[in-house]
Formats: sequence, C-alpha cells, structure tokens
Amino acid sequence: MSAHIPMSSGATSIAAAPDGVSPDHIFDIGFAFRKSKALLSAVELGVFTALGDGPLDGETLMARVGIHPRGGRDFLDALVALHFLDRGEAGRYANLPDCALYLDRRKSTYVGGSLELLNSYLYVDWVHLTQALRTGHGGSALADGGYAGLYADRASFDTFLQGMSGTSLIAARSLAERFPWHRHEMVIDVGTAQGCMPVELARSHAHLRGGGFDLPQVEPIFTDYVRRNGLSDRLRFYPGDFMHEDLPKADVLVMGRILHNWDLPTKKLLLRKAAQALPDGGALIVYDNIIDDERRHRPHSLLASLNMLIETAAGFEYTGSECSAWMREAGFRDIRIEQLDPISTAAIGIR
Amino acid sequence: MSAHIPMSSGATSIAAAPDGVSPDHIFDIGFAFRKSKALLSAVELGVFTALGDGPLDGETLMARVGIHPRGGRDFLDALVALHFLDRGEAGRYANLPDCALYLDRRKSTYVGGSLELLNSYLYVDWVHLTQALRTGHGGSALADGGYAGLYADRASFDTFLQGMSGTSLIAARSLAERFPWHRHEMVIDVGTAQGCMPVELARSHAHLRGGGFDLPQVEPIFTDYVRRNGLSDRLRFYPGDFMHEDLPKADVLVMGRILHNWDLPTKKLLLRKAAQALPDGGALIVYDNIIDDERRHRPHSLLASLNMLIETAAGFEYTGSECSAWMREAGFRDIRIEQLDPISTAAIGIR
Repeated sequence: MSAHIPMSSGATSIAAAPDGVSPDHIFDIGFAFRKSKALLSAVELGVFTALGDGPLDGETLMARVGIHPRGGRDFLDALVALHFLDRGEAGRYANLPDCALYLDRRKSTYVGGSLELLNSYLYVDWVHLTQALRTGHGGSALADGGYAGLYADRASFDTFLQGMSGTSLIAARSLAERFPWHRHEMVIDVGTAQGCMPVELARSHAHLRGGGFDLPQVEPIFTDYVRRNGLSDRLRFYPGDFMHEDLPKADVLVMGRILHNWDLPTKKLLLRKAAQALPDGGALIVYDNIIDDERRHRPHSLLASLNMLIETAAGFEYTGSECSAWMREAGFRDIRIEQLDPISTAAIGIR
Repeated sequence: MSAHIPMSSGATSIAAAPDGVSPDHIFDIGFAFRKSKALLSAVELGVFTALGDGPLDGETLMARVGIHPRGGRDFLDALVALHFLDRGEAGRYANLPDCALYLDRRKSTYVGGSLELLNSYLYVDWVHLTQALRTGHGGSALADGGYAGLYADRASFDTFLQGMSGTSLIAARSLAERFPWHRHEMVIDVGTAQGCMPVELARSHAHLRGGGFDLPQVEPIFTDYVRRNGLSDRLRFYPGDFMHEDLPKADVLVMGRILHNWDLPTKKLLLRKAAQALPDGGALIVYDNIIDDERRHRPHSLLASLNMLIETAAGFEYTGSECSAWMREAGFRDIRIEQLDPISTAAIGIR
C-alpha cells in the first residue's frame, strides 16, 4: 500500500444519499441539548461570575468553581467553542461581552436566574415530553400542585421567582422604551414575582408609581427587591389571588407570562378583570411567548406552549390574533401586537 | 390616551444594555434543549414513519401516533417551525426531504436509532452534568457497569446497538467512498455492534470480505443484520473481548467510537493490539468525535468528550495530534486526519 492515500479533502457535509439530502440539521438539533446543558451547568457552577474580575488560567478557574480536572478542560473549551468564553494566547479564559454583562451574578443585568430555572426544573421536566404529548398532562410539580404548592417549598420558591426576573428583565427594558409611559402615572404588574417589571419601568420613568400584585407569600421577596433597587417610595406590594379577587386599580396593568398558564375560560376571566380595574383610556399590556398567526415562524413560542403542557394543568400559548379577539371580547380596543424581544411579544389594548 | 400608540417597530433583537450587547445567543442556547427534545420525542412517537406514505391532516396524524389533542397541534407546528415537517395549504403535514430519508424507520437510511439512544439515555444522563464535572464521575449505567452490564438488559442492549448503527451509518458511507478499498481484501470492524460499518463497506465494494469483532452476546444481532442485508457470504462475526484477547487478523481494521470510551493506557493498548493484528502495509482506521487541535472549533467533539465523562469510567475524546502521536508510538506511519462528516473524524495510519 502506498504511503500516500488518495482521499478527498475534509468533509463539512455528507452526501450519502443519491439525491444529496443531508442529515446535518437532524443531528444538529438532536444533539443540541448538550449545548444547553453545558451552558446551564456553567451558570450553576458560577463560571461567569468567577471570571467577573478578569481572566483566569484553567487550573485556577477549575479550582475556584469546584470542577474536577477530568472533564474540566473539555468543559471550558466547549464553552469557548460555543462562544461563551474566550481563551487567550496564554490559555487564560475570559467572559465574552454578553456573558460578562448577563451571566455575572453580581450585576443588575444578570439574567442567569432564568437559566437556573431551566437547569433546576425545566430541563428535567422535559424528559417527560413524550408522556405529556400522549396524555395531555405533564405531571410536573407545578401542573399537579399549582403555584401554592410550588411556593410552599422555599428553595423552589426562590429559584422560581428569581428565574422569573431573569426572563422578565429584557422584556421589561424593551417595554420601558417602547410604550408611551409619559401619558400614565400608575402601573401595576399582575403576577409580579420579585417585581422585576415595575422596578425596570420605575427606574426608566421617574414619574411612574404603582407596584406589583401577587400571592401574599411573595410580599417579602418583592419588598426586598424593590428596596435594594431604591424604589420603595414609589412601588408597593398588592397582595391577592387573581383567581378569587378583583385586580387593583391602575392606569396601566401589565400581565407578563400569566395568561399562558391557564385554560381559555380563565384567560378570558383575567382579561375581564383587567378591563374592570382600568379607567377609560387605561391600557392593558399582556406579554407572553405569543405564537405567530401562521404558526410556523417562531419555534420558541410553539415550544413554550409545549412547556405549558408539561408545567401546567391546562395552560397554552396563543397567537396574536387569538389574543386580540379575546381582548376585544373583554372590552379593549385599538389592540396591537408588538414583539418585545426574540422571546416575548406584547398585545396592548386600550380600555 | 390616543388610539394610536407610537411605539417602535418589531424588535428582532434587544439592545437593553448601554453598549448594545444582546443576550440572544445566551437564551438561544439555553433553551435549545427544547428543540432537541421535541425532535427526539417525534422520533420516539414515530411521526416521520407515520408520514412515510404521504401527507396526513393533523387529526389523523395525532390519532395514528397516539398524541393527545391538548398539545398535539403545537407539537406538530413546532416541528414545522423547526424545519422537520412541512404543512401544506390544506393543513396537511408532510416530512421534509431529510426526515423522509433518515427518520422513516422502514428505510435502510434510517438514522433515528441514534436519536432513540439520545432520547432514552443521554438526554436524561446529562441531567447530571454538573455533578459529573464536580466529581469527575458521571454515574451512568455504562460508567458504573461497563458494557457487560449494559448488554445484560435486553431493552438497553437493543437500543444501544441500534443507536450505534444510527450514528455509524453516515460515517460508514463516507468512509466507503473516501478510502482506497480496492487495495485491500479483508476488513474487520472492531466493536462492531450491529455491523453497520462492515455492511456499508461490503455493500459499496463487492470484492471486500471480513466482518465485525465484538463481545459474544452481540453475535445474533450482528448475524441477523448482515443476513437481512444479504451479505452473509462475505461477512462473519468474530467473537471476543479486546480487553483480554488479541484482535483478529485483517488487512484493514476499523475502530469507530471505541478509543473514546477508555483511559489513555487502554487507548494505547488497543492501538498496539491493532498494530499486532495487521500485516506490513495494512491500515488502521480510527474514528471518533476527534477534537480540533486548537480545541475551539468543534463544539460537538468537546461536548462528546463531556458525554464520555458522564457515560464512561475514564473515557475522553482527543485531538488529531494526540491520536497521531499515540499511533506513531504503536508502530503506525503516514498518519492522516480526515473529517468523515460533521460529527466523525478519522485518523488513518499504515502499519
């Protein structure tokens, strides 16, 4: 045999089938859970926070976040290959700009709470997707016990509420910029969790006051978060259960990732309650992972609806057209659909 | 309040931070496990096989694969949005070409066995990535019990062996095209599982004979697969345990996704055994998820190495340079690295 094997040069895509159809996309998506989990574990281990003060060599970084040498280097280099970390010539690892800003726990721009929630609950709950599809019931803690059950476990409660802030922050900042807040004075966020939304709105608009409405056990978490953000003079907590009580009165009500948790009669009930709580000319801002009307352009929203299948007893996401129709039925007019960020879309209506 | 709310037009990316850094990539990867799981569940439910005879309306398709109406439409439309299914004007779902070819169980080009393996084992095992990173030990069935343990459970055994074929098929077809097989007569695949590799090689090259080497309990599976492919006259099974026995003699030995399972001394032992089994001028073809030498360009390979952390007691992937050095040390020359497909890379050496 010759020392020089004639072979074609490096393949980046295969063409095994006669018609040149490749399985690349299938394998790319099929294996994508590993990318997710590597990022989620990096957040859990505090890799990006550990790099918040500057680059570190691999050994120091592994020791600081508590990674065993066996997989440590592959893990950190996977984060480089996935474009979360940079690795300099001296072999020192550093946060890339997005991770420095959004995944360092010590920064107010931290959105990692959302990823912590994915890591602690949703990644695991999605193991049961097939079963949920077969039965129409996901069997997660939330689907079985509701929010009261979830909130009864302190660790789950904190992870959940912080996760809500992680997911809300970008939508809140987008909404702070995109809505004519100067025309309104009083805004209340319904199902507020930590209060990320009212804090971001009040921070951006010095004339705004109001607060957040949620179950009574959320109050200390909300109060603490608002105080840490120096907004206790303008934002207060409104305790209540929107399933059994009226919503508090305000010029603007926000319902972010609330409607998607519930069945259609409850969705409509909440919209009617919002209409009752608003004055003429007041605004309701609903936002969720709203599905595009053609149901084919936003995979994230359709997958979010499967998440509701898994995580709730009867929740689902919905299209902009569906939401508009329900809002008109509840007494809203001039409804418009507005994408806030790649994940969240708002439906805004005037009372 | 005006009926016309002046708001900026649809956001496709947010720019909440002063410097315009977006968290889009972070959220895209953080949520990517949902895309994976939707595809893996679709394969498990047989969606693509059910569409193998032509398009079906949603209701018929859901009934045929056993999906409950609650999440069914969102699930199918998510598969449309993820570019696995098409949905025509009449609302009928159809396989896109890659899924028709590779995910219909009745076709010889089916690679879904690989996804079934991800679905049944790896997605779940990756729940424990953080723990594996902390301890250096994954705790999966394979890591704890080895192949004998895995093979003792019939259902696991079948899923595993079929999964190996799913992952091997594309590499095998690429290798059938890319290597100068006309110079050799006898090829044996080491750790052959069902025998996907020798079957593809023998199918493409009528002069080739040989077979597959694996643990004795694999024999009936191998024999059946070879018989179904009409190759029993040229391919036979070689039973043995490469940890304790010599490798069978052949002109070409293939070791696909074998070395990555083991620690470095065992990797080197297997390479020495291959050198002993080959004649002068014989070839060893190793293929694995080989890592690029800079350890930054192939996330799939680095993540595959984390998979070895989780799934094996001491395995890891390795770079082309590392493999070349080990092969030279074992007595091989003229070693070249060749990417077979987006997942698999070969290191080929001459005895």
